[in-house]
Amino acid sequence: MPRPEVIVDGPRLWASIMEMASVGATTAGGSERLALTDADADGRHLLLRWAHALGMSDRVDHAGNLFLRREGAAGVPSVLVGSHLDTQPDGGRFDGVFGVLAALEAVRALNSASVVTERPITVVVWANEEGGRFADFCTGSGAFSRKLEIGDVRAMASFDGSAYGDELDRLGWSGDVVDPAEFAVYLEAHIEQGPLLEQAGLRAGIVHGIRGIRHVHVAVTGRTAHAGSPMAGRADALAGAAELIVAVNHRLDALPADPSGIAITAGRITAQPNAQSVVPGRVELTFDVRGAGLEPPEPGVELLLDCVERVVAETGLSLTTRSSLAYGPIAFDAGSVELLRSAAGERGVPTLEMVSAAGHDAGYVASVLPTAMLFIPCRGGVSHHPDEFASEADVTTGAQILLDAVREAAART
Amino acid sequence: MPRPEVIVDGPRLWASIMEMASVGATTAGGSERLALTDADADGRHLLLRWAHALGMSDRVDHAGNLFLRREGAAGVPSVLVGSHLDTQPDGGRFDGVFGVLAALEAVRALNSASVVTERPITVVVWANEEGGRFADFCTGSGAFSRKLEIGDVRAMASFDGSAYGDELDRLGWSGDVVDPAEFAVYLEAHIEQGPLLEQAGLRAGIVHGIRGIRHVHVAVTGRTAHAGSPMAGRADALAGAAELIVAVNHRLDALPADPSGIAITAGRITAQPNAQSVVPGRVELTFDVRGAGLEPPEPGVELLLDCVERVVAETGLSLTTRSSLAYGPIAFDAGSVELLRSAAGERGVPTLEMVSAAGHDAGYVASVLPTAMLFIPCRGGVSHHPDEFASEADVTTGAQILLDAVREAAART
Repeated sequence: MPRPEVIVDGPRLWASIMEMASVGATTAGGSERLALTDADADGRHLLLRWAHALGMSDRVDHAGNLFLRREGAAGVPSVLVGSHLDTQPDGGRFDGVFGVLAALEAVRALNSASVVTERPITVVVWANEEGGRFADFCTGSGAFSRKLEIGDVRAMASFDGSAYGDELDRLGWSGDVVDPAEFAVYLEAHIEQGPLLEQAGLRAGIVHGIRGIRHVHVAVTGRTAHAGSPMAGRADALAGAAELIVAVNHRLDALPADPSGIAITAGRITAQPNAQSVVPGRVELTFDVRGAGLEPPEPGVELLLDCVERVVAETGLSLTTRSSLAYGPIAFDAGSVELLRSAAGERGVPTLEMVSAAGHDAGYVASVLPTAMLFIPCRGGVSHHPDEFASEADVTTGAQILLDAVREAAART
Repeated sequence: MPRPEVIVDGPRLWASIMEMASVGATTAGGSERLALTDADADGRHLLLRWAHALGMSDRVDHAGNLFLRREGAAGVPSVLVGSHLDTQPDGGRFDGVFGVLAALEAVRALNSASVVTERPITVVVWANEEGGRFADFCTGSGAFSRKLEIGDVRAMASFDGSAYGDELDRLGWSGDVVDPAEFAVYLEAHIEQGPLLEQAGLRAGIVHGIRGIRHVHVAVTGRTAHAGSPMAGRADALAGAAELIVAVNHRLDALPADPSGIAITAGRITAQPNAQSVVPGRVELTFDVRGAGLEPPEPGVELLLDCVERVVAETGLSLTTRSSLAYGPIAFDAGSVELLRSAAGERGVPTLEMVSAAGHDAGYVASVLPTAMLFIPCRGGVSHHPDEFASEADVTTGAQILLDAVREAAART
């Protein structure tokens, strides 16, 4: 028997995204709800008000993740669907929010159509996806997925000096452990945070997994000197750091062009003493290395280390490296990916088969549940910025595909 | 009639330098007496105690400069000799201090030998030579020399929020204007703050003037992007800044080797947002440009601007430049330089004819008085650092040459 048609209400979803954006609204036109702050709690209170109006139950787990359940005709396992509501400092209005509110819109549309699914549908809000206030990110989904120890997560200090665990307790977000076995599948919709969909002129991306990320810190040690000292004989740490950045970029330029090719970014730099008339004696750089597609990033790390060796040989400076983050790559479950692909196909929406360049909660959840993600375009690929924007049409299309896939998953008993 | 021999007391001078270093001593083994702080005042109080014991009178001028006078047989004009006692943050023990205490040692030695000079000898301590606490440096000597407006100097804010003028008043350092016409000549002894004397194996440098300095700020504007975005199409401001630094250094490498050749230093760099997973959207760099010898630095500025244009053309990034400091070059008075050269020659001390790579109070004073400087070596060329060091032997030799030159100047009526 064909299932009755259920259509999302685009204007209703858009209005909800705009209302959520007003919580922690910034003068630049974005939102700031840093993880586990009062603004983050205000965002959740708004969502809870909407969820309660839909008859959903709520609970939080031990890591501050919020689960909102719409019951099904049968019991668990439930279909898990959601994202996050916390933002980066001075962040945008769509990152995370779109995925949570598209999931809520699925429930609203099902309620409006009086459709009862077999399996329950659980809308999840993961805690601290962004890591904008804490050193680590995706800590809620990481604890849920048993990839992070809850003791380590609770002990993590925020940049403002609060402990994650104390903030959870303060907000009343310390609940009981939730067993991943309660869920059959996890689906997450998200803005792309990159330019590929927009460049391809496509409205939806079927995400096969998340690219691997390595962070490599490089410390360049030279020798402080007066800016009037002779050029010969200097040991200029900033000059060495610049040589390294240029060498890495030139090596990458020489690779075949590939939007999902190896990416290496020097995002952070600090020089000491950083004074205008002093040759810098020490520079610290952080490189973010992404693998090609779902390949491990190690070839990119090797390229970087080769360049480090070359700079050492050519400059005589001391360069030391230290790896910190090692994340992924993570391949999603083929069956769950097909759920989203089929849903888009049945709506006649052409899609881009792609990998996620950014880390997501789905990366952790994929280790304990069949998982897949759907991307929608965001203007100019801009994210983590007040200018972050997705159109109402794309938001609506994405939410419809998500709803259809959730219904299909919830129909499987 | 030959003048009676007067010999400086090296151990006495060394002990005084070490005692001064104990005022604001740092755990790293250096000294910190930021301009117009209590520590700076403590340093002056120690000096005043010594000066009063020698029968010297004291006064401060409108800009906080301290003048300590030993009377001569005749009246003014007086021989002016000195340097500064303020330090950089976490600074060394010799920068400025050597020049002031060598001048004091000249007076001590003359007193010990009961020698009366024709002209008075005035030991001067210039206020805020370093600029370590204020945006501008050499403000005391600049106001004395009428090159800086006292109103501007007093209004200057410290990095800790105090106004220069308020700090002067707080310390009781706001006196009457002192007329440069009261002095016949200005002599300043100083550590080299560079490696040339040490490399040449020479103990004294005859300084012909101060190299010109320009500061050029470069703002590189690109576009923030996620570290997982494709390499192609990025507008990475840090990559552009690195290209610029490398281009400038390669251009300088191609010039003939010359220790006093054009020097360009990128000393300060700040990236935004400076986050490890974000392509930097903006980088600000400050370049310090020094001219070759006593040539104007403009050819160096042109070289830098050429490189800026090249980076704009090659990367498509926006680079804007802004000049701030424009200082010198300053040529010292040939007669005053000869005073020091002759004094060294009569003591059989081989000297290096050189220019100062660093700015000094003598740079301003040279605009109102015949001026010259004497350098002594400092270990490894290190300055503005706790490791800054000059040997007791070199300190003693330098002080003797200074004393001899001061006596010669004070004998001219």
